Amino acid sequence: MKLYIANQNYSTWSLRAWVIFERFNLNAEVMKLSLFTPEFYQTLSEINPAAKVPALVDGDIKVWDSLAILEYVNDNYLNGAAWPTDKAQKAKARAISCEMHSGFMNVRNELPMNCRALRKITLSEGAAKEWARIDDIWSEQMAAFPNGWLFGEWSIADAMFTPVVMRAKTYNLPLSDLANQYKERVLDSQEISTWLAQAGEETDIVKEDEAGEPI
Amino acid sequence: MKLYIANQNYSTWSLRAWVIFERFNLNAEVMKLSLFTPEFYQTLSEINPAAKVPALVDGDIKVWDSLAILEYVNDNYLNGAAWPTDKAQKAKARAISCEMHSGFMNVRNELPMNCRALRKITLSEGAAKEWARIDDIWSEQMAAFPNGWLFGEWSIADAMFTPVVMRAKTYNLPLSDLANQYKERVLDSQEISTWLAQAGEETDIVKEDEAGEPI
Ligand SMILES: N[C@@H](CCC(=O)N[C@@H](CS)C(=O)NCC(=O)O)C(=O)O
Ligand SMILES: N[C@@H](CCC(=O)N[C@@H](CS)C(=O)NCC(=O)O)C(=O)O
Repeated sequence: MKLYIANQNYSTWSLRAWVIFERFNLNAEVMKLSLFTPEFYQTLSEINPAAKVPALVDGDIKVWDSLAILEYVNDNYLNGAAWPTDKAQKAKARAISCEMHSGFMNVRNELPMNCRALRKITLSEGAAKEWARIDDIWSEQMAAFPNGWLFGEWSIADAMFTPVVMRAKTYNLPLSDLANQYKERVLDSQEISTWLAQAGEETDIVKEDEAGEPI
Repeated sequence: MKLYIANQNYSTWSLRAWVIFERFNLNAEVMKLSLFTPEFYQTLSEINPAAKVPALVDGDIKVWDSLAILEYVNDNYLNGAAWPTDKAQKAKARAISCEMHSGFMNVRNELPMNCRALRKITLSEGAAKEWARIDDIWSEQMAAFPNGWLFGEWSIADAMFTPVVMRAKTYNLPLSDLANQYKERVLDSQEISTWLAQAGEETDIVKEDEAGEPI
């Protein structure tokens, strides 16, 4: 398999797909493209009609979109292990994963992922409301599964929320104690150390993704 | 089961979830809420922490978000029949479903679903580009499955793209001949007749969702 991603410092959707391969030691060659360059679009034009990362090539099969890749890997390489086995928990894990996949537009626009930076920022009302919802999701799950992943064992829901943890770190966003447990859980993981080390080797600056005041 | 939806004239996400129940004759009581009213938020506050429609209540289980509901129904009531059985086709169906779930922001913003209306509109460059991508998706699938659903048999991908067909109709958007086959396929379906008849009984006007010039 080949997994196409973009700059690890900035690309949230790439991180969502990448992390499942790392977590389960799946054999994929990671192809890193530099966001918004001619080579980026040139390479993607041959493998992803949506012209975005992440994209996965598995023999003849092409899959694009972070959530579609996560579901594909879960179906075909993990025998379903990346969702909770309990029916109600699986339903909830899918609901919050899809809520993230299709929403939180203010957080996405105002707080670009920027792994290497530490910044001060003032949230709009819309982003503050979304941030409160994120705190609710994390603290509700930590109350149910203390110090664990969102559903105890690691699941696709964790893949979806990992980039949000990176934002909490960069912009030092307020979190309740319980929600903060989740942030720590993710930041302490082996996958995130690897991702941050690789992101740390990058030197490209993507202007659109530089927000907030340096502190 | 109880499926909470909003105004059928306007609510695209509601339609995506509703259509699978109708298609497979599943037993769900449909609870229609009037968008943006105090009752809408009051009712949702008890069943969906994300405070949006669609939301499904199945005994003790609560599921929100259109795609999560579609996957839930497929897993628990359809034995997987709402995705193509072929592995490569399933991967592609998920990819385009997720592409729709998380993208096409210009089309969504500029072309609100408005089932009863016929309107003239000028697309922005961004929306025109997205519309061309939609045409590509539909025509590629119609070339593979002439006059069928996107993957021959009906699938969740059709649920995701059905509201886009309603936009094609309201704003009379240009489509290639192949893509137009898909529009006809959806508009000729029993589900859509039922939805349109029910939408036609509504009288509420949601100002934010009235776009374009009457023709
Ligand atoms: N819904 C997609 C979003 C992917 C996406 O927007 N990727 C960005 C990078 S993080 C991209 O490729 N942007 C290039 C472009 O839009 O031209 C997913 O979940 O994978
Ligand atoms: N990602 C969600 C989007 C749901 C959504 O935005 N629903 C709209 C109606 S179509 C809504 O409930 N809006 C109320 C609000 O945002 O306050 C899904 O796929 O279900």
